[in-house]
Amino acid sequence: MRSLQSLQHSISEAFSKTGFGHEPLRLYAPISYTLDQGGKRLRPLLVLMSCDLFGGDPDRAIFPAMGVEIFHNFTLLHDDIMDNAPLRRGRATVHQKWGTNAAILSGDTMFVLAYEYVAKTDPELLPMVLDLFNDTARKVCEGQQYDMDFETQKDVTIDDYMLMIRLKTAVLIACSLRLGAILAKANPVYAEKIYDFGIELGLAFQLQDDYLDAFGDSSKFGKAIGGDIATNKKTFLYIKAFELARGDRRIHLTNYFFDKEIDNGKKIAGIIDIYKQLEIDEITRRQIGYHHQKAMDIFRSIPLKPDAIAEMTELMQEMLGRER
Amino acid sequence: MRSLQSLQHSISEAFSKTGFGHEPLRLYAPISYTLDQGGKRLRPLLVLMSCDLFGGDPDRAIFPAMGVEIFHNFTLLHDDIMDNAPLRRGRATVHQKWGTNAAILSGDTMFVLAYEYVAKTDPELLPMVLDLFNDTARKVCEGQQYDMDFETQKDVTIDDYMLMIRLKTAVLIACSLRLGAILAKANPVYAEKIYDFGIELGLAFQLQDDYLDAFGDSSKFGKAIGGDIATNKKTFLYIKAFELARGDRRIHLTNYFFDKEIDNGKKIAGIIDIYKQLEIDEITRRQIGYHHQKAMDIFRSIPLKPDAIAEMTELMQEMLGRER
Repeated sequence: MRSLQSLQHSISEAFSKTGFGHEPLRLYAPISYTLDQGGKRLRPLLVLMSCDLFGGDPDRAIFPAMGVEIFHNFTLLHDDIMDNAPLRRGRATVHQKWGTNAAILSGDTMFVLAYEYVAKTDPELLPMVLDLFNDTARKVCEGQQYDMDFETQKDVTIDDYMLMIRLKTAVLIACSLRLGAILAKANPVYAEKIYDFGIELGLAFQLQDDYLDAFGDSSKFGKAIGGDIATNKKTFLYIKAFELARGDRRIHLTNYFFDKEIDNGKKIAGIIDIYKQLEIDEITRRQIGYHHQKAMDIFRSIPLKPDAIAEMTELMQEMLGRER
Repeated sequence: MRSLQSLQHSISEAFSKTGFGHEPLRLYAPISYTLDQGGKRLRPLLVLMSCDLFGGDPDRAIFPAMGVEIFHNFTLLHDDIMDNAPLRRGRATVHQKWGTNAAILSGDTMFVLAYEYVAKTDPELLPMVLDLFNDTARKVCEGQQYDMDFETQKDVTIDDYMLMIRLKTAVLIACSLRLGAILAKANPVYAEKIYDFGIELGLAFQLQDDYLDAFGDSSKFGKAIGGDIATNKKTFLYIKAFELARGDRRIHLTNYFFDKEIDNGKKIAGIIDIYKQLEIDEITRRQIGYHHQKAMDIFRSIPLKPDAIAEMTELMQEMLGRER
């Protein structure tokens, strides 16, 4: 098994060595800008790790792994237009810097690039790889639509929410793992299991993100506390709180969320306080634990060498252990 | 050989029989709306015809042909956002009807659908099909970027323009023809020739579109005369006119184009008049004729049966003979 650090190094090196195009400049400059931003590069890491787990050569999975990362960054780029987000990873978003049209079109081009890189694989594996990638890409779009729909939809349930994050976040985590397994020519039964594992891992990962927005340590979390609260985002915490709050507490919760005059700091502190009274922190941790456990159960049903299990456990720790 | 009408019928039937998805509704409703609009369905027709020409079974090319049409409609959908166009084929554009966000995201989803349909082919052909489609999609994006760049760029030359329409329009025509040839397992030399033929045909087709905007018969052309002139679009005619106009004529041309007070009807009539004085109509017809001839020369170098040649000639007539 290659170490996580060694795989991460291969990914950064591959991105730093690769040019994605030059002319026309206004098309390719936003693409370089987006792909140079780094970020955790979690998804390509999962591709390489999974390939390694199943006895494949991670170096031969590097292009499809890059394809998944390019696709992920394409979705962020278009999502940022739709959310009208000014910043991404501390820098101006593409639509802020180059305008909406350039952001739409350079996003479209990144989508093509994603397919180009995903397709750089053994021809006999291509039909399976492409089926997986198409299915994933479509689901991610569906998830983003549900997420946008939820902004104006009044009666969003926990089930609705779990479906949305499954589509928007978990399937790409799962796809990354399955892609690595396919590229390693793993037994299809195990390729499917690692996908199911990825779904549970992805759900836990997104719930953790929701949790940290309210209960994380901002110095370790990497972004300010309460961003979701400030924007009235319908996270697991928000939906659960409205599900549970009764009487005065419900009135206070509603006031905090919908009083446009209120100071943001006061709003965030007030809502976190109600979350605590309702034990939303504990409930969310239990939900994360549930999916984490399910993930581990599926993972353990795949016959892998002990060092492979240790490696994946380390990565899960990194993904889910962040400041809990 | 199947007749054009029979191939067209297969395409309409395939689209009318196919559902592209249901939930979430706000994602799939704009997609059905876009794909139900019909239009000429020229590109899938070229796929099927080319497949037929080279002895393949057009019925087995129908899904990839649909993929090309879905891709084309995706580009129109995103282009309409970028151009802020209110109408497409006489109906409200998607971004007008559902908003920009829904238009971006349903466009992205159509892009995935295009890949899904293009990939519905013989696995052994898939690497070649996908390479062709990726290369084409990327070039179409580059062409659209050049087209947007030209709006604010002062010194656009005829060469710049020809490169732009090659990327934005001709490569997809060429891709359609080559795709049909690949699916028919044609000799790769002829698959490349039919691509080159498609490039010349596509250039002639776009120049014809430019020509008809000023010199067409609006009742046959299907849109009002002078749309490009009214929006100061840098067409072949516009660029050529500024290349040739001297003295007073240049002053008049400039006044007509950049006087914001001028009545649109007067502007269009005035500019068409100057075009005629400069013989832009004749020059454009010669340019169309040049690419038409080049297309025919390439086409004749492919050994095909006489009925195949007659069929393609009929289609070219339909594409280029429109009201000349």
